[in-house]
Formats: sequence, structure tokens, C-alpha cells
Amino acid sequence: MPEIAFTKGHGTGNDFVIVADPDGERDLSADQVAALCDRRFGIGGDGFLRVVRSRALGAGSATPEAEWFMDYRNADGSIAEMCGNGVRVFARYLLDTGLATLAEGAALAVGTRDGVKLVTRSGDGFEADLGTWSSDGADPLVRARGLDVPRPGMNIDLGNPHTVVALASEEELDQLDLTVIPQLDPVPANGANVEFVVPSDPLVTAGVGRIRMRVFERGVGETLSCGTGTVAAALAVRSWAGDGAPDQWRVEVPGGTLGVRMFQGAGGEHVALSGPATLVFSGTVSLA
Amino acid sequence: MPEIAFTKGHGTGNDFVIVADPDGERDLSADQVAALCDRRFGIGGDGFLRVVRSRALGAGSATPEAEWFMDYRNADGSIAEMCGNGVRVFARYLLDTGLATLAEGAALAVGTRDGVKLVTRSGDGFEADLGTWSSDGADPLVRARGLDVPRPGMNIDLGNPHTVVALASEEELDQLDLTVIPQLDPVPANGANVEFVVPSDPLVTAGVGRIRMRVFERGVGETLSCGTGTVAAALAVRSWAGDGAPDQWRVEVPGGTLGVRMFQGAGGEHVALSGPATLVFSGTVSLA
Repeated sequence: MPEIAFTKGHGTGNDFVIVADPDGERDLSADQVAALCDRRFGIGGDGFLRVVRSRALGAGSATPEAEWFMDYRNADGSIAEMCGNGVRVFARYLLDTGLATLAEGAALAVGTRDGVKLVTRSGDGFEADLGTWSSDGADPLVRARGLDVPRPGMNIDLGNPHTVVALASEEELDQLDLTVIPQLDPVPANGANVEFVVPSDPLVTAGVGRIRMRVFERGVGETLSCGTGTVAAALAVRSWAGDGAPDQWRVEVPGGTLGVRMFQGAGGEHVALSGPATLVFSGTVSLA
Repeated sequence: MPEIAFTKGHGTGNDFVIVADPDGERDLSADQVAALCDRRFGIGGDGFLRVVRSRALGAGSATPEAEWFMDYRNADGSIAEMCGNGVRVFARYLLDTGLATLAEGAALAVGTRDGVKLVTRSGDGFEADLGTWSSDGADPLVRARGLDVPRPGMNIDLGNPHTVVALASEEELDQLDLTVIPQLDPVPANGANVEFVVPSDPLVTAGVGRIRMRVFERGVGETLSCGTGTVAAALAVRSWAGDGAPDQWRVEVPGGTLGVRMFQGAGGEHVALSGPATLVFSGTVSLA
């Protein structure tokens, strides 16, 4: 069994096993990724990041213009397009290991299956431009254990599907039992991540909107943090708040606090996710 | 923040962060242990094993006759006497790192807060003599979600308290919802680990009794494996089976298979736990 070097990192508790493979010689199988991400028998993580040069992917590279490509996998080894917290941790890894440099005010281009993402430094870590978003305008009914009556949600699409539900109070948020999957009516064709949010009172302080959120991730369960879920929550609350609502938000998730910013970019309004990205430990592990 | 070296290991999915501190210079605080055992922000583990020489503990050593002392902590940093899977993983670490040697047929003495434990090699890993056991003969009623009627349990004490409950079928075991804490009547003063067991049919094959088990650990929830719980399960089923029941058992837990053996030793009947013990990865981490 070959030994490989790895690093473990997280963004607000959303955690990743990172393996450097600059020359594209270590394309792990789904089973190998799942074994590494197992929290008892492996290293443990919500996802896996392979750090590979775009040019090592040859003609098949989707992002030849970015030096580094983030080969992101879910914890079960399946392929995923993008991960908002993952791309921020990816940037931390590139800079801390010296694989890339980033001048103050400059942007680091990271190749992903969803195209090139631009990452910049932000106060407490990194900000990633996640591109444009959309909503179908539907308001599915959401039922959850601990919620006395069904509530209408708002669908937001960020490459992956989200349904955001506003609750009346922090007490209601705390009482939610997310060990049980929330029910959506109508049932979405591909499922959805469900975000439960409580706007702060007052909603806006010093020009920044503030929200608390818990999230049930599709196929996973409740997690400490979900990058795109955080963005969806801010977009939905801004919509409900109506005219004059800010384009800057702070979202408190169980694993920490993330920032969301809306701005005009290529193709329409973009959303950006900011917050801490931390490397915790490094080591070696035998590949099964 | 000082960097320290560590190793991660597990026995049937019961996992531990291991730190070598031969000269007793690194007595981590409860907060530091809890941070290392956090599965998202730290390394992750059910418990923590500090590997320290008994003589480095000086006059305060409880086990001067054992070269190595297992300073075991729970994942929250609190002190615990013993851990049946932990002491087997501890032995694996000592032997794989060369800190100790163990001739075929010999026993390795490991100091613990519950006295010296003797560990020997067994087919698939290590066997640890966990000493004597007792039962108060009570049969508390056990209620659990997914169980249609309350069932009588059997109390077994192995230094920590257990209540073992026999179920009628594998289907019943699979349908149990252990995301909710089982209720005991009367309520035990210090709580109890609750083991749900299904005896095999036939119970005994080639002189070995066979059981399937799931466990709800006090203060933790459902786990993949509990060493003393496995032993309690075998003791209870042997008692229910009556005359002629074997003194050798194989217990299938969600994280793998463990062996239990009863034999006459100092102070009465002893129980021994055997099974795999695996080191998964090693690395360095910054101490907060």
C-alpha cells in the first residue's frame, strides 16, 4: 500500500482532506476517496480536494487559464462541480504551501468543473466569487420536526438547489430536530438543501444584514456549514426584506460566521462567499 | 503554538488520537484534548491516548510495575479509568513504533487508572484481559424508539455500568432508532451504556457463541463499537443461555467483529476482549 501525504483543512467546520498531485499522477478511485473521508476508519472529511495543475489534465482540462485545478469529490467519492467552502480552503492550501502566491488586491484563479473561480483575500480568510444565481419563484411548503406548522420556502439555485425557510425566532431555530429529513411539497426532482434562517432584529447593522442559519444538506444531514447554503440564505432574506435591503450579509452558522456579498459581474449579479479557511494538520496515510 | 506529532488508530471503528510523551512532559489540558478529538476542527476521535512511561509519573504512578502507562481521556477531555478497545490500540502503537516488544505467547503489561492490564497477541490483533465483572441481578425495563414494547434488561458492571437487552430478531435490531436515548426503569444513578443484542440461530457454532449487537453509549450516543459493551453482551447472553453455554463468544458490532473469552483468574472469573487494532495515519498538528 503506497503512503501518500495529505493535509486536513476546514472552513467554518466544513472539512476537507487535501492531497497535492501537481502532475496529475494520482487520480484516486471513488472507493479510495470514500475510505480517506471516513471519520472512523480513515482521515475524515465532508469532501476531498485533489490539487492538480490544469496543464497536467491535458486537452481534457476545462480551465487551461487557471494554473491550479480543484478536483473536488464528495465524501462518498462521487464527483461534484464546486464547493464554496472547499475553494476557499483550496486557496489557503496553495498559498500556505507556496504552490501559488497572491499579491494584496489580486485574485487567484482556481479551475473547477464549474469553470474558473476567482479567490481574493478577505479580512478573516478568503472570498470566492461563486458567479451568478437564479430562482424559479416557487414557494414550496416545508415541514420539519420541531416546526409546529408548515412554512413556505424560497427556491434558490446556485448550481445546486436550495430551499430557504424563514423561522419566527431563535428559539424556533434551536428547537428544530434536523436528525430527520425536512419534507418539501412539492417534492423537488433532485432534492434540495434546506436552510432554516432567522433574521436578526434589527435586520441591518452598519449596512450589513445579519442572519442565523441551520442547514440540512441533501444526502448528508445537518452540517456545521454549507457555503452555497449561506449564500442562498442571504439572497432569500434580501428578497423578503424588499427595497433598500443591503448587498452585504453576515451569516452565523453552527461552525462559525460567513460573509456574503452581491455585486454586478459578468452575466448578471454575482454572489461571493467569504470567511476563514484553516489548515489543521498534515500527515501520511496508506492508500488501500 | 507548538507542533506535536500524533498517530490515529482504531479498534473496530472505536477511534483514538495517540500522542507519545515518554518522559511525561506533555500533560495536555482537557480543552486541548477536546480540541484534538473534535472531528471537524481537530483530528477527531472517540478518545485520546497519551503514551507515557510509568516512571515519568514518579511517586504518583498507580502502576510502577508496567513500563508504559495509558493516560486515557474521553473525547471531551475528561479522565476515564479504562477503555477496552483503547488498550488494544495502545498495544499496537507500542509494538509498531518499537517502544515495546512482545514475544510470541508473552503478555504486555499496560498501566491504566484501573490497574495493570495484560495484552497478548490474538489471531486478528490483540486480546486484553479486562479483569473481573459483576452483576447486581436487577432487570430494569428498557424502552427505545422502534421497540414496540419495553423489554427487561440485565445489569453488568465492568468498571462502567451496562444494561443488556435481548431482541427477538435481526429486523428488530435494524429498526431500532438510537438517535434517541433509550429509557431505563428504574433510572440508574450514574446512567448506563445500553446494549441491544440478537443471539444467532443456532447460538453456538464450533463451541463459540455468536451475537449481533448495537450499543448506545452513555453521554455519546450510538457508536460503531464499545469494548466493555461487547463483553457485557456476551456475559448477559451466556447467563440467559444457562447451563452448557460456552465461554467463548464472537460479537458482531457495526464497526466489525470482536471476541470475548471468560476464564478463571485472580479474584474470580475474568473477561478478555480480542479483535483488530489498526493505526491509520500519522502527522503533526498545532496545539492551541
